Amino acid sequence: MAQQLMRSAVVVGTGLIGTSIALALRDQGITPYLIDENPEAARTAAGLGAGVVGPPRAPVDLAVIAVPPQHVAASLREHQSGGLAHDFTDVSSVKVRPQEEAAELGCDLVRFVGGHPMAGRERSGPLAAQVDLFRGRPWVLTPTESAGDRAVGRTRALAELCGARPVVMDAAQHDRAVALVSHTPHLIASLLSGRLLHGEESQLQLAGQGLRDATRIAGGDADLWTHILSSNAAAVAEVLTDLVLDLDAAVDALRELAKAPSEPGPAGLSHLRDVLVRGTRGRGLIQEGSSGGLSGVAVGT
Amino acid sequence: MAQQLMRSAVVVGTGLIGTSIALALRDQGITPYLIDENPEAARTAAGLGAGVVGPPRAPVDLAVIAVPPQHVAASLREHQSGGLAHDFTDVSSVKVRPQEEAAELGCDLVRFVGGHPMAGRERSGPLAAQVDLFRGRPWVLTPTESAGDRAVGRTRALAELCGARPVVMDAAQHDRAVALVSHTPHLIASLLSGRLLHGEESQLQLAGQGLRDATRIAGGDADLWTHILSSNAAAVAEVLTDLVLDLDAAVDALRELAKAPSEPGPAGLSHLRDVLVRGTRGRGLIQEGSSGGLSGVAVGT
Repeated sequence: MAQQLMRSAVVVGTGLIGTSIALALRDQGITPYLIDENPEAARTAAGLGAGVVGPPRAPVDLAVIAVPPQHVAASLREHQSGGLAHDFTDVSSVKVRPQEEAAELGCDLVRFVGGHPMAGRERSGPLAAQVDLFRGRPWVLTPTESAGDRAVGRTRALAELCGARPVVMDAAQHDRAVALVSHTPHLIASLLSGRLLHGEESQLQLAGQGLRDATRIAGGDADLWTHILSSNAAAVAEVLTDLVLDLDAAVDALRELAKAPSEPGPAGLSHLRDVLVRGTRGRGLIQEGSSGGLSGVAVGT
Repeated sequence: MAQQLMRSAVVVGTGLIGTSIALALRDQGITPYLIDENPEAARTAAGLGAGVVGPPRAPVDLAVIAVPPQHVAASLREHQSGGLAHDFTDVSSVKVRPQEEAAELGCDLVRFVGGHPMAGRERSGPLAAQVDLFRGRPWVLTPTESAGDRAVGRTRALAELCGARPVVMDAAQHDRAVALVSHTPHLIASLLSGRLLHGEESQLQLAGQGLRDATRIAGGDADLWTHILSSNAAAVAEVLTDLVLDLDAAVDALRELAKAPSEPGPAGLSHLRDVLVRGTRGRGLIQEGSSGGLSGVAVGT
């Protein structure tokens, strides 16, 4: 079914995500064309068996724009003008701003559907690609009102061909969701890790697996994440502002407890306990298997 | 060598840590006596092969006070008065305040050395105990100036018998260190998890392994952690205050970028990039194997 809708494809940008998609398509019998502004990256992807280097001679069914969020709209505009494909999607982890920019640049929004496969790795580049990166994971589609049925069908087919579960959402809803479950946690992990630069070696030797887990996502590509966060700045700032209020209240409770060590005020203690209990409850909402069939889902970039 | 210094022991408090210590001692040929205010917990630990229930008939070499930080001083006082052992140590994850409280209660500080094995699990209670919980991990000793050589030697022997690496530190230095590498990250993970309670189900379905890792430590025992954080309130408040300043600056950068979407100010972008780069560098300081022979070290509770 998915193969009937989409029989040919081109991947623009052969980094981790683009190359993983190309490998998955290849696995399903579709040989994608591979384009990258860095020809070496496209050759590397092709060397991994992800497809053939260079643009197609005639328009293919679907072009997958797999470039960082700040370049999506320009790339879409360029390749729609050039007639690279009949329909287009992207895979960037922010959806509102690239869609706004695409509209401003006069892109054909009938033939474009935004997408975001919720998978990623700390490593980047074609050599980190995996054929099964998207298997069983959500792949968010954010069609605008302008989007044509064929473009929606083909983008959905792409997700299915990659073994992912298509989830349709409004772009703004998507951006608020990833601000909460991915972008803010990433920024917090980075700030927490950054604080370690102020630590002495004798302090850091006590660090262990808990801290390593808590900061693992901070290991991602700094340039890519700068653009992800700035492209979703308003939504991330909103979550972060709420978090700062929570933090301020926690600092107040701790200072109260620090001042009266022998007679800890019940207010400070009960505030701290409330924070910890809510943390345990919040964690329960995202346990593996807690969200229906979406177990094993990784946070996307 | 370690066996010569310490030939008999009692464990007061057969939770996760106490029972794991008892199992490790048993493995080294020492059968500890097991005491818990909840007799069922002591019987469960004994049932696991961790030792024999009840106080020794004569004072043993070392008593391990394995109770929550807020109860350490009172327990030490009680068992020193009762002549439970010749020397005493504790295993709580905060060191300054229990030592101050012990001094206030008139405990014999010649025969007491604070200790903190840097290992833990999200699960608690005797049934979560593991004989190898401390293997290869740091075990911080915080002897005061009053501490006798024999007590220091026996506490060190305890750590070695459990397969851990003794690390001697000043109590205040220890508390600042764990505020940075364990207590603040725990509180942050809890606040981050708690924010998810404000999320909608459609948002939370996009959560994945990255967020689960970032919040894993928030799954710990809320009551225990309330007391850990309140016992180390001043040091945690200090780290947290610095972190709030970092967060405020990040929010400012994001708001600037959100206001000028088409022309993002280079200041906001470069600030975000700096946060992310520093995060990656900070993470590098605590990579497995980055701190000499301390690989595989878990964050203690």
